[in-house]
Amino acid sequence: MSVISENTEADMRHRILVVAERLFRQIGYQKTTVADIAKVLQMSPANVYRFFDSKKAIHSGVARHLMGEVEQAAASIAAESGPAGDRLRKLLSTVHRMNRERYVGDEKLHEMVAIAMEENWDVCVLHMQQIVGAITQIVTQGAASGEFDVPDVAVAAGCTCTAMMRFFHPQMIAQTINKDGPTIDQMIDFILRSLGARTVAAVS
Amino acid sequence: MSVISENTEADMRHRILVVAERLFRQIGYQKTTVADIAKVLQMSPANVYRFFDSKKAIHSGVARHLMGEVEQAAASIAAESGPAGDRLRKLLSTVHRMNRERYVGDEKLHEMVAIAMEENWDVCVLHMQQIVGAITQIVTQGAASGEFDVPDVAVAAGCTCTAMMRFFHPQMIAQTINKDGPTIDQMIDFILRSLGARTVAAVS
Repeated sequence: MSVISENTEADMRHRILVVAERLFRQIGYQKTTVADIAKVLQMSPANVYRFFDSKKAIHSGVARHLMGEVEQAAASIAAESGPAGDRLRKLLSTVHRMNRERYVGDEKLHEMVAIAMEENWDVCVLHMQQIVGAITQIVTQGAASGEFDVPDVAVAAGCTCTAMMRFFHPQMIAQTINKDGPTIDQMIDFILRSLGARTVAAVS
Repeated sequence: MSVISENTEADMRHRILVVAERLFRQIGYQKTTVADIAKVLQMSPANVYRFFDSKKAIHSGVARHLMGEVEQAAASIAAESGPAGDRLRKLLSTVHRMNRERYVGDEKLHEMVAIAMEENWDVCVLHMQQIVGAITQIVTQGAASGEFDVPDVAVAAGCTCTAMMRFFHPQMIAQTINKDGPTIDQMIDFILRSLGARTVAAVS
């Protein structure tokens, strides 16, 4: 395949995903058909199937795109300089904010996420691995500089992400919004204490 | 009302709830009617409505009973003697095990919980308050004895419960079973470190 046709293929896949995401947001995932997507692109459904072999594959692509933006934000915070504790707080707060903005209050996108969790779990696993990866990067740096004190970096990063479930998981954000419970900053303080963060420990 | 008729009323409410729970388990909450419950008890639906003014009220009663058993187990562990860290580990593990046994793998009971979360949220709030209350009791004792080191007992107890969401919340237990992530013991270690537990901190 030449470079030009490869680019064309990537471009077509991208165009299909952009249209699919728009339709999923407007009329919902369940109600959107491959024929609807094809119609907007002025092509045949058969042509769409040349690029994605099922509606589920299109769903994966759209979900990857939405989650990918959150992953990029997390990765870029992990790559910043400055104290590990500050960056970890910024990362955890940013993931919460982006997920809340994406999936809560937007019923159509919320439907898409619920379907990803039921039928396209691999996409969610990949996303969580990326987020845990960014957390691991910061915890590793914090442990190396002596800012954190953790017995096992991988376990600490996994527990940090799991402890944030109420603030990360779209269904949990939706279910707990305006409900009693710790604030996100209290939760992050609690996590930083577990990581032995010097600045938080000094407060006690 | 005399003592005898009060006892009779409490007894009738109890009998209705026992039958309702059995039917909810056998045929599901949605498919069970008040008439079905009345039939088993050989009484009229109107008579059932004398004790519970709606099917929702019966649902609340059954949910309270199921959750009440978990609350009693948590309260009795909190009332035991011994190191706070050991008791907290036992309490958190017990709540996880009881919720897993109750709601995961039993689709009918899982349906009941899902409905409680959507339509009977007050029952869930009350349950969480009870569990946080038992956790608070142990954290308070640990802080008083110097075993724990926490800046704010109430916040620490709330964060402990929230950090356990993956292991406590019926929907999250079902969704994450056999999935990657920290074990419950790793998560409890992480929490104990945040509470400044001496035994866990000594390991690092």
